Amino acid sequence: MTELAISYDDVVQAHRRLEGVAHRTPVMTSTTADAASGAQLFFKCENFQRMGAFKFRGAYNAIAQFTPEQRAGGVIAFSSGNHAQAIALSARLFGVRAVIVMPRDAPAIKIAATRGYGGEVVLYDRYTEDREAIGRRLAQEQGLTLIPPYDHPHVMAGQGTAAKELFEQAGPLDVLLTPLGGGGLLSGCAVAARALNPDCLVIGVEPEAGNDGQRSLRTGKIVHIDTPATLADGAQTQHLGQLTFPVLRSLVDDVVTVSDAELVEAMAFFASRMKMIVEPTGCLAAAAVFAKRVAVTGKRVGVLLSGGNVDLARFAALVQTAQPAQD
Amino acid sequence: MTELAISYDDVVQAHRRLEGVAHRTPVMTSTTADAASGAQLFFKCENFQRMGAFKFRGAYNAIAQFTPEQRAGGVIAFSSGNHAQAIALSARLFGVRAVIVMPRDAPAIKIAATRGYGGEVVLYDRYTEDREAIGRRLAQEQGLTLIPPYDHPHVMAGQGTAAKELFEQAGPLDVLLTPLGGGGLLSGCAVAARALNPDCLVIGVEPEAGNDGQRSLRTGKIVHIDTPATLADGAQTQHLGQLTFPVLRSLVDDVVTVSDAELVEAMAFFASRMKMIVEPTGCLAAAAVFAKRVAVTGKRVGVLLSGGNVDLARFAALVQTAQPAQD
Repeated sequence: MTELAISYDDVVQAHRRLEGVAHRTPVMTSTTADAASGAQLFFKCENFQRMGAFKFRGAYNAIAQFTPEQRAGGVIAFSSGNHAQAIALSARLFGVRAVIVMPRDAPAIKIAATRGYGGEVVLYDRYTEDREAIGRRLAQEQGLTLIPPYDHPHVMAGQGTAAKELFEQAGPLDVLLTPLGGGGLLSGCAVAARALNPDCLVIGVEPEAGNDGQRSLRTGKIVHIDTPATLADGAQTQHLGQLTFPVLRSLVDDVVTVSDAELVEAMAFFASRMKMIVEPTGCLAAAAVFAKRVAVTGKRVGVLLSGGNVDLARFAALVQTAQPAQD
Repeated sequence: MTELAISYDDVVQAHRRLEGVAHRTPVMTSTTADAASGAQLFFKCENFQRMGAFKFRGAYNAIAQFTPEQRAGGVIAFSSGNHAQAIALSARLFGVRAVIVMPRDAPAIKIAATRGYGGEVVLYDRYTEDREAIGRRLAQEQGLTLIPPYDHPHVMAGQGTAAKELFEQAGPLDVLLTPLGGGGLLSGCAVAARALNPDCLVIGVEPEAGNDGQRSLRTGKIVHIDTPATLADGAQTQHLGQLTFPVLRSLVDDVVTVSDAELVEAMAFFASRMKMIVEPTGCLAAAAVFAKRVAVTGKRVGVLLSGGNVDLARFAALVQTAQPAQD
């Protein structure tokens, strides 16, 4: 058996690096959600994390381990999503230059947010240009270090700190559910869960349209798919990573899927009953519980809400298509 | 000098009653808000309280002190807002009957929410009927005990537990701001602040359109006004209470006001940057800081967010009139 890319000790070290820098996000509960599910649900609110998502944990943990040469050279990332903002903010905290390669047609608001955190945005045309070629050229010419969004041990270990905190805050759990895209979050959290609470079931949740992770775990090899059409933009990955897959295969019990409509229902529940804004991807784990994709009756269940970055106009339009607010 | 209606010991007793029943709501911080205000802001999130507002604290503390006869008889309240839901939920937790007198044209969603918590809703026509007469008749005929929304020592002491918790969670503060309607919340919080942190400035915040509290404190007597037109529906009170006014007069340093537009800007900030839904009334204290109505530079400032109960469609419409979301 090959050694996995990270151990629990890496998560512990990451947590030490993040202390006083990342928010120790609250764990929220809801009598209504407990009654509806017949379980005790503990929502780990990474929508309240710095820059609005758990991605800050992994990005900061990666840049924290740069050599002096890497710090002097700067960091580069490809992303139009939360990883871009996480890298830009983390780099700023270390006084490191950050270059973010984003498609020219990315939402203006995301480009502005990345710049707001001090990132230098390099735009490319996603139809005619190859972002990886652009990235490699910039990295070589300018001495930048690439941090990928999930397939990196320091990123994976950083994300695992969210589960470590959740166990510290909520106590022992019977089930832990997290969103699954490329597997950075789920792999880190699975490592933490296995160390802290070996009997806890660890379950990943994907959008129905992008169930490559589920298929990969069932067939035993990494399945590649076209970019799936789903509201869960943070889980529009085409495949698991070379480093995340072996961890998931060893430590994760199951992967289940939810529909976009179920994500929207969960968003509306969080807004109307729990007064929180959770982005569609952030609702994956909760939607699996609400839609009864996992047997939770009588159990203590950790539900990771991964982020809250959704444009307000889009948020408003989505929740109004859901059932009427309940209070 | 007349004795005040409540002492800090009443707040301590109330807190003991609420332990394990009310949520110990989180205190959130925002690097962005701190940078913009030049202060360290500690947001006490009563929007995450049970039934979505601090009102649960006072209602529960009041019913907890019912005699066996009062419990057998039941409770009655007049309210179309958070007090109605707070009484209905608290009564249910004690197995006590709750009758809530609401105007027939109250939002259907609020009537449904009150019924959802087990309250018996009695509707009246606000143009032709006198709700107090209806309430008195029902109370007499059916042996119900009236709990008013703010002018009651048990309600005031219960609300003060929010400030007690905030001091426990955030440490010493230089300034504490809370919304001001009838004065239940502000009076309880002022008593807690004076006991725990005597040098802390205590400031109430009213909507510009309904500044009766400010005028009352400045003139030294309770000023009555017509129901003010403001988005802050929880602060549409016409006058301070006979019990709350003396407490405010003794213990509160100042009352400032904010406009509806400033409330909406604060709502949009909380939604876009902090991923929280705060109702317009709940934004009063924060809006006063953001609009620089209070000198806070370099200070540690407690900001009480009183509730999150706003219809989602209304919320969406309001925040879209504010400046574009910033991330």
